[in-house]
Amino acid sequence: MTNAQKTGKPKLAFRPLPVPQVDVRGFWGDRVDAVAARTAEILYERCVEARMLEQIDPDRPSPGVVIPFHSPSPDEAANPGFTGSTVTTQMFWDSDWGKTIETAAYSLYRRRNDALEKKIDAVIDLYGRLQQSDGYLSSWYQRIQPGLRWTNLRDCHELYCAGHLIEGAVAYFQATGKRKLLDIMCRYVDHIADTFGPGPGKKKGYCGHEEIELALVKLSRATGEQKYMDLAKYFIDQRGQQPHYFDEEARARGADPKAYHFKTYEYNQSHKPVREQDKVVGHAVRAMYLFSGMADVATEYGDDTLRAALDRLWGDLTTKSLYVTGGLGPSAHNEGFTSDYDLPNETAYAETCAAVGLVFWSSRMLGMGPNARYADMMERALYNGSISGLSLDGSLFFYENPLESRGRHNRWKWHRCPCCPPNIGRMVASIGSYFYGLADDALAVHLYGDSTARFEISGKPVSLVQTSNYPWDGAVSIRVEPQAPVAFTLHLRVPAWCRKAALKVNGKAVALDAVLSDGYAAIQREWRKGDHVELDLDMSISRLFANPEVRQDVGRVALSRGPLIYCVEATDNPGQLHRISLPRTAEIEAHHEPNLLGGIVTLSATGRREASEDWRNGLYRAEPPASEEARLKAVPYYAWDNRDPGEMLVWLREG
Amino acid sequence: MTNAQKTGKPKLAFRPLPVPQVDVRGFWGDRVDAVAARTAEILYERCVEARMLEQIDPDRPSPGVVIPFHSPSPDEAANPGFTGSTVTTQMFWDSDWGKTIETAAYSLYRRRNDALEKKIDAVIDLYGRLQQSDGYLSSWYQRIQPGLRWTNLRDCHELYCAGHLIEGAVAYFQATGKRKLLDIMCRYVDHIADTFGPGPGKKKGYCGHEEIELALVKLSRATGEQKYMDLAKYFIDQRGQQPHYFDEEARARGADPKAYHFKTYEYNQSHKPVREQDKVVGHAVRAMYLFSGMADVATEYGDDTLRAALDRLWGDLTTKSLYVTGGLGPSAHNEGFTSDYDLPNETAYAETCAAVGLVFWSSRMLGMGPNARYADMMERALYNGSISGLSLDGSLFFYENPLESRGRHNRWKWHRCPCCPPNIGRMVASIGSYFYGLADDALAVHLYGDSTARFEISGKPVSLVQTSNYPWDGAVSIRVEPQAPVAFTLHLRVPAWCRKAALKVNGKAVALDAVLSDGYAAIQREWRKGDHVELDLDMSISRLFANPEVRQDVGRVALSRGPLIYCVEATDNPGQLHRISLPRTAEIEAHHEPNLLGGIVTLSATGRREASEDWRNGLYRAEPPASEEARLKAVPYYAWDNRDPGEMLVWLREG
Repeated sequence: MTNAQKTGKPKLAFRPLPVPQVDVRGFWGDRVDAVAARTAEILYERCVEARMLEQIDPDRPSPGVVIPFHSPSPDEAANPGFTGSTVTTQMFWDSDWGKTIETAAYSLYRRRNDALEKKIDAVIDLYGRLQQSDGYLSSWYQRIQPGLRWTNLRDCHELYCAGHLIEGAVAYFQATGKRKLLDIMCRYVDHIADTFGPGPGKKKGYCGHEEIELALVKLSRATGEQKYMDLAKYFIDQRGQQPHYFDEEARARGADPKAYHFKTYEYNQSHKPVREQDKVVGHAVRAMYLFSGMADVATEYGDDTLRAALDRLWGDLTTKSLYVTGGLGPSAHNEGFTSDYDLPNETAYAETCAAVGLVFWSSRMLGMGPNARYADMMERALYNGSISGLSLDGSLFFYENPLESRGRHNRWKWHRCPCCPPNIGRMVASIGSYFYGLADDALAVHLYGDSTARFEISGKPVSLVQTSNYPWDGAVSIRVEPQAPVAFTLHLRVPAWCRKAALKVNGKAVALDAVLSDGYAAIQREWRKGDHVELDLDMSISRLFANPEVRQDVGRVALSRGPLIYCVEATDNPGQLHRISLPRTAEIEAHHEPNLLGGIVTLSATGRREASEDWRNGLYRAEPPASEEARLKAVPYYAWDNRDPGEMLVWLREG
Repeated sequence: MTNAQKTGKPKLAFRPLPVPQVDVRGFWGDRVDAVAARTAEILYERCVEARMLEQIDPDRPSPGVVIPFHSPSPDEAANPGFTGSTVTTQMFWDSDWGKTIETAAYSLYRRRNDALEKKIDAVIDLYGRLQQSDGYLSSWYQRIQPGLRWTNLRDCHELYCAGHLIEGAVAYFQATGKRKLLDIMCRYVDHIADTFGPGPGKKKGYCGHEEIELALVKLSRATGEQKYMDLAKYFIDQRGQQPHYFDEEARARGADPKAYHFKTYEYNQSHKPVREQDKVVGHAVRAMYLFSGMADVATEYGDDTLRAALDRLWGDLTTKSLYVTGGLGPSAHNEGFTSDYDLPNETAYAETCAAVGLVFWSSRMLGMGPNARYADMMERALYNGSISGLSLDGSLFFYENPLESRGRHNRWKWHRCPCCPPNIGRMVASIGSYFYGLADDALAVHLYGDSTARFEISGKPVSLVQTSNYPWDGAVSIRVEPQAPVAFTLHLRVPAWCRKAALKVNGKAVALDAVLSDGYAAIQREWRKGDHVELDLDMSISRLFANPEVRQDVGRVALSRGPLIYCVEATDNPGQLHRISLPRTAEIEAHHEPNLLGGIVTLSATGRREASEDWRNGLYRAEPPASEEARLKAVPYYAWDNRDPGEMLVWLREG
């Protein structure tokens, strides 16, 4: 491998299209409309109710500590080295504003809303007035803990907050053309770049909660400023190096580095340099954000050493620690990973933000070239474990996304740690940017769905129109409309879940085997107005089985159709879902139900159900329970808990 | 119902035989020997190591607070009414001494040990010197929190500690003939009776942790003092009455009654008067101790109103909230009950003390007459969920008794809250007293096993010798040896798990149907030297199924033989026990293995096991896992984790 390959500019980088270049209709159109119609405003209102405006308004008294510092655990309290609690979720209110601004930006692009735009402008004005003359900007450190800036990167989310404000700034600029927040954040990032980095006198730190890395890549792409990209790379390269920054920083503030709530730096993936990591550990959202930034840097610098680490980590996550829904991070304790194959269903934490983070990571792995390995996973997480976090009408949220519920897990209006609502909001509202990857002479279609994209290739404007009822139907018709003939390669994903696919270009069948590479069909030609491609993806129903290493799913089956994972809900089925079993031989039918849950395809079958009418005399007996036929109906997992609260189950017993 | 029936003396009360009147051999002989050889001394040594001697020695400086008060929960810390933590496990060190003395007492009876006896005598001497002139005796309140006695019965275990010291005193008196501790405790109980009760100026309280009720019954039976029995009845009658004592007491010490860690008085079964209770709620050990005391009082006073409540509670526990092992209380949070049919296996708390408590309660329900409903449950809890808490060699302990383990649940030397080790120690060492119930003209045989009992009936001494290899073999031979002919009814339990039983008296077959009532065969005759009875209980293997209401056991099967529940352990079986399934048609064989785990009967069968050799490519796939034949071997649940640490499973998948 030459040095140029390791660190030079990559030959072929696929970058996402900015949100305003892709209009989605159909399934995703409905989702985006719900965010634009409701979620975006709800996020703003909840921030105001939480007193977040007060914190960023330099003309009003500081609200002080509104959300208490977390209570010490018994372990901490008993630890003589414990120097008091250092974290409150209020520290990351700037990030909530950042994601709220980002969601609003995409929503405003989708649907004009002058009142909301005015409110966001006012928030941006406050940040403009709050910003210090040296560029520094943190409502927490300026208003609540002045004098302490850059003293606890490990716990206090300072650069994480900057990252989310950067993402908000880029989005608001792209959607509205307004530069004010972008300029504010460029000034702040200039200050950060003066503070952190390899040069003499600069801090060698990085954030305990990754986020700024991927945000700096976005900022660099939006502004063309290489310095921001280099800073992203610095934070990634520096992570986990010795002497450990968080140790030194703790000592500098008079604390014992060992008095760390989460005990190990695996929690924030700084236990070793990122290129040496091969297991996905710690806090799930942190991990996904880090790997997203790493993938961006690997793409932009053609860094194969990062890519190798990412592939190891990808293999670890997807073969040992991922729910079938694309959810991840089973434990509430560390909001993250535990041990290999530990995937409890009812107690699954599977934070919405973590699945959103997996969408981020997967999509960024596609920067290094089309590969269905990543795109299939992006689609899995998108259609299941992430959008399950938002009610169909865009007004209610899940923080945890279990795969089994006794009926008491229901959607919330808000959360004490409100990271998930604006995260799922911005992801849904920006869905168009996940559809395509654009390289110098190629366009990759990662996602299917009724939509129109506009982009330039070899300097020539092209429109690409997808007509499809995806994900309910696998037939996708694509019209390519260049203003003038232009040669490029169109890469079309053929998902691994699809057992039979057919491709036609301008009505002529193309042998898929001949053009398929890494799960993408490559069509290289000079494209002319009126060219059209038909892709037909078979959407038969699958029974999915888990690796027998997964104790919680053994003897069980999950149903899927296309990219969707299904579940049964109490409202559609006889009571006590654990009593239901699905024989392996049972026929499963798909039905389109246009009036159910916004229009879905349901699955139904005849299973069996254990009866207990004759169990009056006790809990245990030597005679097996009687069972009877039971008609089952399953709905897409993402749509659960949008009707009457009740039990839910993804993994059905087989038998 | 006449008043006399409600509150008069009962016609027929069956009381247990004191420990020294029953010598056990065989299965229980081995268990008792382990306690006498090791556990009894270990308990004493651990108490000393924990600094418990310092606390009761008036000549040494008080150790102060050695075990911290429990850390407030986040809920508590956030509650403005929370007035600080009020509980430390150190408060109940007297109870640990009480149970340690009790275990030592039975052990000394079993096996002379002058060194241990001397140590226990010294402990008793310290208590004698610690006791105040008014009779009061609490090492915690006298040495650590002077001036606060009787200010927090709800949380601080003051009467609970007295109860355990009383039980220790009675046992030590019965086993050694030494009265010193008995006299100390009678003086203390006299003081308690002066302090609490219906009279004017007396406190209307009772303990937050029940225990003294059943202890007072023991003391009354041992001393013949009716006052002690009446005090037991008072505590039971008063529990849960309004105005609520714990509310008033909290106000009296300046605390908000609502600032209660466990939020509801269901936790300590004082949410309503005991006769109105019909659900088993709250802390499991507390519930079992209360119901034990209630059953004793119902027996001694012929109180049918208490009996009716007990039967409702019994029905609730045994049909909705009991593990198949006789374990109970699934949740660590309240060390107790949650909701009906919630019986998680891996996270089962199922405290050893709770199963011991169920043995106490069941045995005391037999005071009101022989009924296999209660005796079968006593046997279930005895042979499974309770003695699982003690290693075969008597040196290591379980606090929790889950029904499934990934291999990391292993026996401990001790516990921060060391209630279980001396509780299982005293229960095992006193096992003889659970074998029989003696009434004026009847003897009930509740338990079978090689043993000799000595008792008097109608003033005439009788010996009863059981010869049996129970529980490994169901053949029981009983020789009745009265000094002179004496008429009485011999009640012999025929367990419900037994599908076929045969009875002979002096070699002559007796038709069981004709003599069976409430699961006991009644043989009324004049017994003469040389009379012998043969009872043959079929011990075929059973597959047990759980009521389909129990979500955690659906599609699963447990194996039992006689009173024993079985489990599979990793050391005997192919790895990852969750992969194993047992077809319903598989033949199961029993083998006596004299050299395994002290000599047991194992069960074996050919099941199936899911393989994962071909799963290299991921977590989920559309093809079902391959399975292969697998030979299974199960051992009695009580004996698990006595070899290499590893996985364990009671409920096997069927299929």
